[in-house]
Amino acid sequence: MYKNDLILRAAKGEKVERVPIWLMRQAGRILPEYKATRARAKNFIEFVKNPELAAEVTIQPVDILGVDAAIIFSDILVIPEAMGLPYQMIEAKGPNFEKTIQSKKDIDDLRIAEAGDLDYVMQAIKLAKKDLNNRVPLIGFAGAPWTLMAYMIEGSGSKTFSQAKKFFYQEPTLAHQLLEKITQSTINYLKGQVAAGADMIQLFDSWAGVLGHDQYLEFSLKYISKICDAIEPLVPVTVFAKDAHFALADMAKLNCNTIGLDWTINPQDARIIIGNGKTLQGNADPCMLYADEKTIEATARKMVADFGKQRYIANLGHGLYPDIDKNKVKFFVDCIKGL
Amino acid sequence: MYKNDLILRAAKGEKVERVPIWLMRQAGRILPEYKATRARAKNFIEFVKNPELAAEVTIQPVDILGVDAAIIFSDILVIPEAMGLPYQMIEAKGPNFEKTIQSKKDIDDLRIAEAGDLDYVMQAIKLAKKDLNNRVPLIGFAGAPWTLMAYMIEGSGSKTFSQAKKFFYQEPTLAHQLLEKITQSTINYLKGQVAAGADMIQLFDSWAGVLGHDQYLEFSLKYISKICDAIEPLVPVTVFAKDAHFALADMAKLNCNTIGLDWTINPQDARIIIGNGKTLQGNADPCMLYADEKTIEATARKMVADFGKQRYIANLGHGLYPDIDKNKVKFFVDCIKGL
Repeated sequence: MYKNDLILRAAKGEKVERVPIWLMRQAGRILPEYKATRARAKNFIEFVKNPELAAEVTIQPVDILGVDAAIIFSDILVIPEAMGLPYQMIEAKGPNFEKTIQSKKDIDDLRIAEAGDLDYVMQAIKLAKKDLNNRVPLIGFAGAPWTLMAYMIEGSGSKTFSQAKKFFYQEPTLAHQLLEKITQSTINYLKGQVAAGADMIQLFDSWAGVLGHDQYLEFSLKYISKICDAIEPLVPVTVFAKDAHFALADMAKLNCNTIGLDWTINPQDARIIIGNGKTLQGNADPCMLYADEKTIEATARKMVADFGKQRYIANLGHGLYPDIDKNKVKFFVDCIKGL
Repeated sequence: MYKNDLILRAAKGEKVERVPIWLMRQAGRILPEYKATRARAKNFIEFVKNPELAAEVTIQPVDILGVDAAIIFSDILVIPEAMGLPYQMIEAKGPNFEKTIQSKKDIDDLRIAEAGDLDYVMQAIKLAKKDLNNRVPLIGFAGAPWTLMAYMIEGSGSKTFSQAKKFFYQEPTLAHQLLEKITQSTINYLKGQVAAGADMIQLFDSWAGVLGHDQYLEFSLKYISKICDAIEPLVPVTVFAKDAHFALADMAKLNCNTIGLDWTINPQDARIIIGNGKTLQGNADPCMLYADEKTIEATARKMVADFGKQRYIANLGHGLYPDIDKNKVKFFVDCIKGL
């Protein structure tokens, strides 16, 4: 079906001729083409909600960088918005919610999002699929429930997310109600993405690392597990929980194909802990792409040597930073593809 | 010499009757008494530079919370300031440097700080020691060279410290020159603190967790090791590298008595990796102090059960947050002391 289905085969544990690669935030500010498209929208939210523009930037890295998958351009916070919490994205600062979740009433007032509430994402997926014309698969995504809840309570980014964590300690029952509503919304959303054409799904638990092990199992992994159980029968699911070094053995039991790793995790240790039943994805430090080509090539070689060529998808351990040179990114992609 | 020297004995691996406890940021905004003293200074920098006020807030938690050690009230960024980079502390935002380090000339222009450049800290230590009157030991501290360098290059806090890390990739020789200058300044500073009366020293590597293992060894632990070698012959040294889960085995080889742990580290795992040659310190999630007393008591019991009563100093895995109820903090301290 696809001219290049390496990433789907790698995710499923099927034999691949070479290691596939895509990059978190590959559709983003490292590309002048992205900035040009972005400039056509009034603000970030309008940009995300415009299917034509979103599809356009989704395809750019496939054309320009030669990656083995596209990932739909969107934002993890579209789910809280569809549940009733509008937000703005403030340049160089991050998201800012008009209201936050503080009480039972706030949670009761949230609706469970349906795929139809996020039709603009489904339209973007359909357009992107059409433009991709089966060159490579398209990845859909969502934020993990804990990460979304963290923003919904704090109302913005935070170094500690201490207010969201306070909710676990002071209102555990309400926290579970909130997480359940987010989880149901996310399942509806991801089923919609798959129906629209997403070939794989990645869950981003960006703030996993601020939780301890017990809280992570109770308030995050439990809900990630529900989402995996609902979506994995449809398409391969990848779980990327940043800085969750303490939960690798638990993640190995998830009903998903692929576990994403950040650069603080040793590949061989991860393989031992997670076992051979999962594909691993990652885990270069994006800052490595500030280095010279010799260092980039050595990193690519080391990644493939450490992870192995099978059951492995090359990627970074975090999203690309806006000031990284796109030529270095392309060089890195070519290094992996040449191995 | 001290009415209560539990913490010194625990650090040195000597037998203790009960587990000693102190808390990171115990001298801080959780105490109304701190806020009252703070209000007497024009701004944060003037506060830090006023030995009387600094000594006053240093003693408060000993009087009010009953902790087993005082820690001198200061800021890790006094070293960059003494080296020639003034900064301001902006309310609810964090530090902001007037100029940053970007070139060889910037590094050449930095002076190596002498203890005399930080005489206000030495005076504060002397005053605090006098007021403590041998009730409990006094802890001195400094930021680890990598953490200080991160601020000196970024000029402020950062979620990724990608600009500081870029320096490692693009200017490794300059990075080592900068780290060496910071290290020499820190050794001078800490020797001064010990001469002024500090009984122990803690190094804070707050941004350890943004580095991968290899970079951590080369650009952070190497310099921490130099500081340990210079200071450990004088007084016990504690190294607290936040989120450095990947470097526990390396830290076990440091010439220091105590390793601080954050709450993402499993105590039994840490004991196995680090071995019995070090005292462990930590590691409750400060957010746990938002919970009810039953949960706080259970956490205290679990900490002591998991770490053991010997070679252990109870603490948090990060500093106290300003909105934590001081009565809960006192309750936690009493729980540990009662076990």
